[in-house]
Amino acid sequence: MARRVRDEVAAGVAAMAETTGMTPGLATVLIGADPASEVYVRNKRRACVAAGMRDLHRQLPAEASQAQVTDLIDELAAADEVSGILVQLPAPAQLDAEAILARIPPAKDVDGLTIANAGLLAQGRPGLRPCTPSGVIRLLDEYAVALEGAQAVVVGRSVLVGKPMAQLLLERNATVTVCHSRTRDLAGICRSADVLVVAAGVPGIIDGDAVRPGATVIDVGIHRGERGLRGDVDYDKAAEVAGLITPVPGGVGPMTIAMLLVNTLAAARARHGADQP
Amino acid sequence: MARRVRDEVAAGVAAMAETTGMTPGLATVLIGADPASEVYVRNKRRACVAAGMRDLHRQLPAEASQAQVTDLIDELAAADEVSGILVQLPAPAQLDAEAILARIPPAKDVDGLTIANAGLLAQGRPGLRPCTPSGVIRLLDEYAVALEGAQAVVVGRSVLVGKPMAQLLLERNATVTVCHSRTRDLAGICRSADVLVVAAGVPGIIDGDAVRPGATVIDVGIHRGERGLRGDVDYDKAAEVAGLITPVPGGVGPMTIAMLLVNTLAAARARHGADQP
Repeated sequence: MARRVRDEVAAGVAAMAETTGMTPGLATVLIGADPASEVYVRNKRRACVAAGMRDLHRQLPAEASQAQVTDLIDELAAADEVSGILVQLPAPAQLDAEAILARIPPAKDVDGLTIANAGLLAQGRPGLRPCTPSGVIRLLDEYAVALEGAQAVVVGRSVLVGKPMAQLLLERNATVTVCHSRTRDLAGICRSADVLVVAAGVPGIIDGDAVRPGATVIDVGIHRGERGLRGDVDYDKAAEVAGLITPVPGGVGPMTIAMLLVNTLAAARARHGADQP
Repeated sequence: MARRVRDEVAAGVAAMAETTGMTPGLATVLIGADPASEVYVRNKRRACVAAGMRDLHRQLPAEASQAQVTDLIDELAAADEVSGILVQLPAPAQLDAEAILARIPPAKDVDGLTIANAGLLAQGRPGLRPCTPSGVIRLLDEYAVALEGAQAVVVGRSVLVGKPMAQLLLERNATVTVCHSRTRDLAGICRSADVLVVAAGVPGIIDGDAVRPGATVIDVGIHRGERGLRGDVDYDKAAEVAGLITPVPGGVGPMTIAMLLVNTLAAARARHGADQP
């Protein structure tokens, strides 16, 4: 499915080039050489190129100053060929990551992490949405999971996933419950869910007991353990009960990058006045 | 309790005047002469004066143009004596209310309605919060209602009340469910609540069947009917079951104005670098 989304974006990029002469460009910004961050950025750049977009990657040294980073962001903000800006986090410790994100113009914030885009989402207005939760919505839609009036439970309340996930489910008219580390009877509440999205960051926190028979289970967690990658959900046990369930790896992860491309194309279209699809 | 909060604000205003020589000022903006809006604005101005703040009210004619309104907002935004700006809604139909609100600097947005303040709340960062939901939190705190780990249910998802209410309860570590017009089994979900906040805008939508014995019930609704004012909750029936319940009128309403004063004082303190309490 992630491939299908990426193919759709590629078709949109080609159509945009034909009608406007413009090609969307994604500026990934990597500060330092954290190995995991390097892998993430490489994957994003590859996906961007594969979709026919311009790869406008920029690299700064690990010891970059706040002023160097903000100067770069300002330059990218002003550059016409840059449709989207993505600063790979975490940033080195000497930097103020919030202040860096705050300099990204909301219209180029393809990660959907600025306060402005969080406010637009909170108020139910159009804006760029965080990639992981919007990827989850896309997955649910593609599998025709009914959201209107459904009981949705989100485990986790991070700014990156849990909170925007809850708002996107609410926007789709689900009845939404947000659980977290202080929740009592987590399994009992999860068992009330028609749609259960787990983004707790705790390996295996959800097992079969917490899944209503036939429910849809989305596992956003990813952890490296002795037996390879695993998620927040005990897949084998939950899969015996669930109607639909995403694996880890290979479930939500690929959708996140696909939605980054969707956001970058949408930002380019908004910028150049092209019709939305 | 609203009086106690107002007295606290009055003491804070006096202390601020003594230490900084500055007096907080609230600029209410009323466009046109809608009778209900006139009453609301008058009550806010009176409360402001009673707390020792400057009443910097501004009035525009019903036929005011967008440019007239935005010029006024810009003037108030720049004025040093203006700590907070409150545009009384609804605005006349020829005006773009969203564009008007968007011109209020977030630091003077004492109604907590701008996209910036919604984003700060969504991301759990400090900012000015909408008055009605923060008044509800204050009520719950004053009555020592435990929120940490509690099951909280919010009925309604308005930008003004329901959505920020859910986020404030989440910030206080409640497990939060948001219900609305598409929710199935509304009464059943409400019965799971330790704390039930009703802001549906539908008279009497919640009755005794929807209240868990001993639960705390907060009624944000207010409707004018044949037998006077009533709320979203059937008070007589719910009161038989609830542990604590707010009346309508005289429950949440007075807290809203009190929290407007709290926000105005906080905005003035932030502006003049005075210590927070």
